[in-house]
Amino acid sequence: MQRLQKKLAAEFGIDFSDLALLETAFTHTSYANEHRLLKISHNERLEFLGDAVLQLIISRYLYQKYPQFPEGEMSKMRSTFVREESLAGFTRTCGFEAFLRLGKGEEKSGGRNRDTILGDLFEAFLGALLLDKGVEAVEAFLYQVMIPQLEVGNFERVTDYKTSLQELLQVNGEVMIQYQVVSEIGPAHDKLFEVEVLVNGQAMGRGQGRSKKQAEQAAAKNAVEARG
Amino acid sequence: MQRLQKKLAAEFGIDFSDLALLETAFTHTSYANEHRLLKISHNERLEFLGDAVLQLIISRYLYQKYPQFPEGEMSKMRSTFVREESLAGFTRTCGFEAFLRLGKGEEKSGGRNRDTILGDLFEAFLGALLLDKGVEAVEAFLYQVMIPQLEVGNFERVTDYKTSLQELLQVNGEVMIQYQVVSEIGPAHDKLFEVEVLVNGQAMGRGQGRSKKQAEQAAAKNAVEARG
Repeated sequence: MQRLQKKLAAEFGIDFSDLALLETAFTHTSYANEHRLLKISHNERLEFLGDAVLQLIISRYLYQKYPQFPEGEMSKMRSTFVREESLAGFTRTCGFEAFLRLGKGEEKSGGRNRDTILGDLFEAFLGALLLDKGVEAVEAFLYQVMIPQLEVGNFERVTDYKTSLQELLQVNGEVMIQYQVVSEIGPAHDKLFEVEVLVNGQAMGRGQGRSKKQAEQAAAKNAVEARG
Repeated sequence: MQRLQKKLAAEFGIDFSDLALLETAFTHTSYANEHRLLKISHNERLEFLGDAVLQLIISRYLYQKYPQFPEGEMSKMRSTFVREESLAGFTRTCGFEAFLRLGKGEEKSGGRNRDTILGDLFEAFLGALLLDKGVEAVEAFLYQVMIPQLEVGNFERVTDYKTSLQELLQVNGEVMIQYQVVSEIGPAHDKLFEVEVLVNGQAMGRGQGRSKKQAEQAAAKNAVEARG
């Protein structure tokens, strides 16, 4: 944990005080269960707290960044951002997974690279940071690590619905998939696009987004989900 | 709004700066829709933000207050606390509903006393307070207005599942309903009770809570839900 503490200071400017708390954040239930007699705390409660502070900071970011967006649109964006695959990606970017205390069984079955475990780890770390340093410190960390990625739309790569839709449809041979912008609202710096996806000329789904790319993803997602 | 500003200062020690923001928080969509040409902002976006800050503060409160509780239990308690009927009650306690700007149609149909509208208003106010004064101010306000009520379990009155269960069962004549404690875990100041509800001697549901009363409510809820 001291190595992690040094890493946090060097890379993120975080002077983490409570090492026991940090250790709890990096302890998966599987590790605690294997060492039951030692009564080791695991990170599920911190994950609960971390999820809440993450939601708040992303909400405040979206509120300020997109003054034109209705509540429903912000809500959808937020759930995209805080998806477990997205959070697992941030754990990897930060190189946190190496510090995770994992049970032997989980380790063998590849748990150290599993999105659910790594997504939960990211949240648990945020929870611990909240307790150790307060909301502003969590916000500063997320503005370093996560928000810049959201700004450039990198989170979208995590689930590429356009590719999913293509793969789904081409099972039965070649199809023609087209995306067309149906509407654009708002000023240039704060646009909301609506896109429709056509399969062999027929409408299959619609989606909105703050870029054409994002609206296309949303339309593809809508079409994928409609096919069940 | 100036009257509200004075009330906030006098009763809650809140020195609210941005009156336009306060006005938005107290403007229901129905009012904005009736004055469409004036392009008045309504409170839905602030409600989104307020919901997030409320979740965080209640989460941190539960985390610190109940160190023994697993994540699932905290999550259930949190959703009980932040239910719309519960929040509507706090709006009434604060006397906020008098300041709500409501459309004429909503006013006529009793919207000023409707739980959905008043619950949303409470969240929107929290969102505005977050923007005006920060997280700590929201926390201080909730520790004044809401947390003391949670401590004494007053929120439970909002939905009385024991009464609901009784009403549900007695449709077909008299029944005997008993509650029995199945287990108690944790130290005296931080207990978790599990209670089973028996109907004519037969187990119908189980529930956990930090008091017997709460565990009984949870068991009754479980039984009500099991009956669909």
